[in-house]
Amino acid sequence: MAIEPHPEADRDAPASQAHSGRGRLLVSCPDRPGIVAAVSRLLYDLGANISDADQHSTDPSGGTFFMRMAFELPAAREGRDGVTLDAVRDAFGREVAPRFAMRWRMADAGRPKRVAVLASKVEHCLQELLWRRRAGEFDDPIVMVISNHQRLRSVAESFGVPFHHLPVREGETAAQEERALELLEGTADVVVLARYMQVLSPAFVARYRERMINIHHSFLPAFSGGRPYHRAYERGVKLIGATAHYVTEELDQGPIIEQDVVRVSHRQRVPELVRLGREIERRVLARAVQLHLEDRILVHGNKTIVFE
Amino acid sequence: MAIEPHPEADRDAPASQAHSGRGRLLVSCPDRPGIVAAVSRLLYDLGANISDADQHSTDPSGGTFFMRMAFELPAAREGRDGVTLDAVRDAFGREVAPRFAMRWRMADAGRPKRVAVLASKVEHCLQELLWRRRAGEFDDPIVMVISNHQRLRSVAESFGVPFHHLPVREGETAAQEERALELLEGTADVVVLARYMQVLSPAFVARYRERMINIHHSFLPAFSGGRPYHRAYERGVKLIGATAHYVTEELDQGPIIEQDVVRVSHRQRVPELVRLGREIERRVLARAVQLHLEDRILVHGNKTIVFE
Amino acid sequence: MAIEPHPEADRDAPASQAHSGRGRLLVSCPDRPGIVAAVSRLLYDLGANISDADQHSTDPSGGTFFMRMAFELPAAREGRDGVTLDAVRDAFGREVAPRFAMRWRMADAGRPKRVAVLASKVEHCLQELLWRRRAGEFDDPIVMVISNHQRLRSVAESFGVPFHHLPVREGETAAQEERALELLEGTADVVVLARYMQVLSPAFVARYRERMINIHHSFLPAFSGGRPYHRAYERGVKLIGATAHYVTEELDQGPIIEQDVVRVSHRQRVPELVRLGREIERRVLARAVQLHLEDRILVHGNKTIVFE
Amino acid sequence: MAIEPHPEADRDAPASQAHSGRGRLLVSCPDRPGIVAAVSRLLYDLGANISDADQHSTDPSGGTFFMRMAFELPAAREGRDGVTLDAVRDAFGREVAPRFAMRWRMADAGRPKRVAVLASKVEHCLQELLWRRRAGEFDDPIVMVISNHQRLRSVAESFGVPFHHLPVREGETAAQEERALELLEGTADVVVLARYMQVLSPAFVARYRERMINIHHSFLPAFSGGRPYHRAYERGVKLIGATAHYVTEELDQGPIIEQDVVRVSHRQRVPELVRLGREIERRVLARAVQLHLEDRILVHGNKTIVFE
Repeated sequence: MAIEPHPEADRDAPASQAHSGRGRLLVSCPDRPGIVAAVSRLLYDLGANISDADQHSTDPSGGTFFMRMAFELPAAREGRDGVTLDAVRDAFGREVAPRFAMRWRMADAGRPKRVAVLASKVEHCLQELLWRRRAGEFDDPIVMVISNHQRLRSVAESFGVPFHHLPVREGETAAQEERALELLEGTADVVVLARYMQVLSPAFVARYRERMINIHHSFLPAFSGGRPYHRAYERGVKLIGATAHYVTEELDQGPIIEQDVVRVSHRQRVPELVRLGREIERRVLARAVQLHLEDRILVHGNKTIVFE
Repeated sequence: MAIEPHPEADRDAPASQAHSGRGRLLVSCPDRPGIVAAVSRLLYDLGANISDADQHSTDPSGGTFFMRMAFELPAAREGRDGVTLDAVRDAFGREVAPRFAMRWRMADAGRPKRVAVLASKVEHCLQELLWRRRAGEFDDPIVMVISNHQRLRSVAESFGVPFHHLPVREGETAAQEERALELLEGTADVVVLARYMQVLSPAFVARYRERMINIHHSFLPAFSGGRPYHRAYERGVKLIGATAHYVTEELDQGPIIEQDVVRVSHRQRVPELVRLGREIERRVLARAVQLHLEDRILVHGNKTIVFE
Repeated sequence: MAIEPHPEADRDAPASQAHSGRGRLLVSCPDRPGIVAAVSRLLYDLGANISDADQHSTDPSGGTFFMRMAFELPAAREGRDGVTLDAVRDAFGREVAPRFAMRWRMADAGRPKRVAVLASKVEHCLQELLWRRRAGEFDDPIVMVISNHQRLRSVAESFGVPFHHLPVREGETAAQEERALELLEGTADVVVLARYMQVLSPAFVARYRERMINIHHSFLPAFSGGRPYHRAYERGVKLIGATAHYVTEELDQGPIIEQDVVRVSHRQRVPELVRLGREIERRVLARAVQLHLEDRILVHGNKTIVFE
Repeated sequence: MAIEPHPEADRDAPASQAHSGRGRLLVSCPDRPGIVAAVSRLLYDLGANISDADQHSTDPSGGTFFMRMAFELPAAREGRDGVTLDAVRDAFGREVAPRFAMRWRMADAGRPKRVAVLASKVEHCLQELLWRRRAGEFDDPIVMVISNHQRLRSVAESFGVPFHHLPVREGETAAQEERALELLEGTADVVVLARYMQVLSPAFVARYRERMINIHHSFLPAFSGGRPYHRAYERGVKLIGATAHYVTEELDQGPIIEQDVVRVSHRQRVPELVRLGREIERRVLARAVQLHLEDRILVHGNKTIVFE
């Protein structure tokens, strides 16, 4: 489950940065009466104003309860003395979380997540993310692009984003991953696989558990694995799709964040499916990344709770 | 706004019916800190278990706050002594609502709403609602069908629903409406216009404000008024749609509940548009009715807040 | 491939029926120059007016060519002497088809196909087809409903359609199929499996090759086999779908005719997926049946060419 | 109607360019028997191989007939002597077109159309077109960007496309248009208004009749004119859309080429609608431009026939 505080996230935080006064609380715990009352009471007592809240229960008796609350600390925002986000986090961890056996995370909405993109040769997903960032669709910076090929260097650099070429040579994949981790460690909070055509080791995956998003170019679980458009063509499906999911050890089996499809007919051969697919891949990956950056996703087993 | 208690709803309620112990609270009020805390505290103190909650604020500072909370009173459900829904309603109206200047409504989820359908000659929307009711898609009974034509009598009666033929004669529309109101009064909680081809008087509309749903066969505000498929064909649109909305005095101008579209091309002439449109009309109207029956809709000005 | 004349179709035709003067020609053959010219020339010489034509080639050099042409024989329609559809069929089979090694079929658009529906316990797909037929969405008659349960008798009979109860007892499935074939033979041109929960024998399937349509309640090839909604829920997909396909020996592997999906979220548990799925199943099956009835589908290997 | 040869198109063609041997014929004429036979016969006699054909008739008796045929001249493609596209065009114009009173156009599929983009301050539509061109989604070159602001210069130039700044000063709009026409004349075959926020004069519009495509940020005819997202928000619609159309003298009234929508809810305020709208605007405009570049659109009155 994703909801324990990521120690790395805290470690990575620039020490000097002031808190924004806008927090996002993500909680999961066994469902029982009083949870919302306790959480909202604490926030109220600390002067926080809940601006958005959403909750879900798999079953009110004996199920699991999930909640996302976005709140503001008006005093902090206005630069006056007042309760800080750290103080809210401390109080919550002390007074509320243990009482309900919560797994939880409280993010500072004002502290951007640093995004690293791993890509290979095809550019459309990388290009879409870089463009959306520049267009202001999200505030979180794309801090680097890592690729096993040189081809996308100019794309990254035309957006002013550092590009690292880490070629994958046979028998040296471990060394390449090591080098990637050195670049990422302390620098990236989220890793996006934008059509990165290498299978990552379990160790690498574990390092970015629930923080690494992949785009698969099919409507999973249909056509997991390689050459999905070829196989979609062979099967004669009337819709093709794309799936964004968190990466887990099992290929294409991680928790699904977002999916979409587009209608096709007998007229589209594989190249046209690839072309149409680009549009959905771009859209689905961008939506998944945006949901993650806004702390809207909770992972529960192998599924996601997405509070839109 | 819809959120003051409908006096009629209470008056209509069979006095003897036991409460189900499942409540739905709908609230709107000026946004300020402490609302969620106060509401959830009261429910907790009375032993209610919140099973679902959703909220929305047009603006955390100075905006309007909207909330839907579904809750259960376990004791009441188990037939044991305990707080009744009436007691919760009383306490809420006394202790919480005035403090935040709330407009609010607390529905008994176990008391079905009684649905009346007004139709004319085309059957698809009526048929869809009758079938969905029989298939158990919703529990609320369809208590009557009223029509200005005889044509749909057999459809209604084949589902065991009483059919009332109220022809509209020139110069006697007021009398016809009067007769319809006599049938509806005390008998129906919701009125659905399932392609009812008569414009209702402001007095009639006022009587079912926010409780009368119409399906318009276009994507409003495009093609409001008559013959929308003809006009869509003339304009050469590439999508046709349907819109379900609450009925207000102004034709086709009421708060939109649900809309959907389907792709068309130059190949479809008006009859094919009409045929394709039936499918969307059925789907959109059925969804809107379901949302209403589940108390998921708040009206704010001329817009709806739909908590899905 | 579907495009050789179905001998049964001819055998089944009431001998006395006059031709409508409206034909639909379906052709597939190795692609090479001159096909369209030869076909359109013949039709022109015989006085036919092409009202609709569509073609597709997997590859202009060395690929397979597919074509659908709808045409009218004005003289025949007006009751005057003139070329009959039979004469066109004869001339085509003699002069054009052999020259291009065509597999082909020429349907009389005025002769309805007789539809038999096989269903089990859930009614929504059957109900949708019966209702669409009554509403005039297609002209082809539904001539019988066969079910292994009694539950849907009243549905069929309320639409005036004969209902045959053929229970499936262990060890007697062959006999049950035999009885079904006796009912269908010479009486039905198309068989629709409207959530019929029995696997049919290869012999039965072979008898209605490319004339038997099934609705599967998932987006194939995802979740082929049993309990697809449960498995979709387990996998946490964000879209659920339905697939209509021609039945072949391999379960859920036949040529796909039509698919569609609907968006779902973590909020929908299995019963809600089942309910939402009904809507797509109804829509997808009805579309597939309509396409088949209008002779818009060609089968090529395990895929369909659908001329919409 | 669009189907007479554009004299400009011919005049603009570089004289030295060899024909590709791939032609696209677009035809409209009064419907009557023999059209397809005559056209396909001529192409066959000249050695052309029809690779794709589509047709539509508003009414087989007395209606208008539309057809698109894509064909190949194998000899020409192989560099051998053989019939050229010019020869086919001549023969068609002499032998077939007059016989059926056709309006028609025969495009050389190998000669790219030169695209000019007019934009103002928002970049997403321009960016999408530039990126699709670079990604090879279409082969036709974007030859220039004209803008009344400087803001998008770097976008255009980062893709290597010349940028012309033509500011619009009050009282000098005629001069600005004059300057734009000088740039476009003989240089551009298609003009795309990629959120160009100036109303063009009737004279300018007439110059690019059926060759100038605009993207409007609403689902027309809803919210034609200014500030459509604001008005969509005010009206509380549940879907927002975008419309690509050919520009005519009347603002937002030209023949619609392509439309699409996306679902929204009460949660999206105007800025989010604007952001979501960008995605549809990009997609809809790109599709419309692609359809135009592939000669798939015929204009009939104020509507389009789109052969997909």
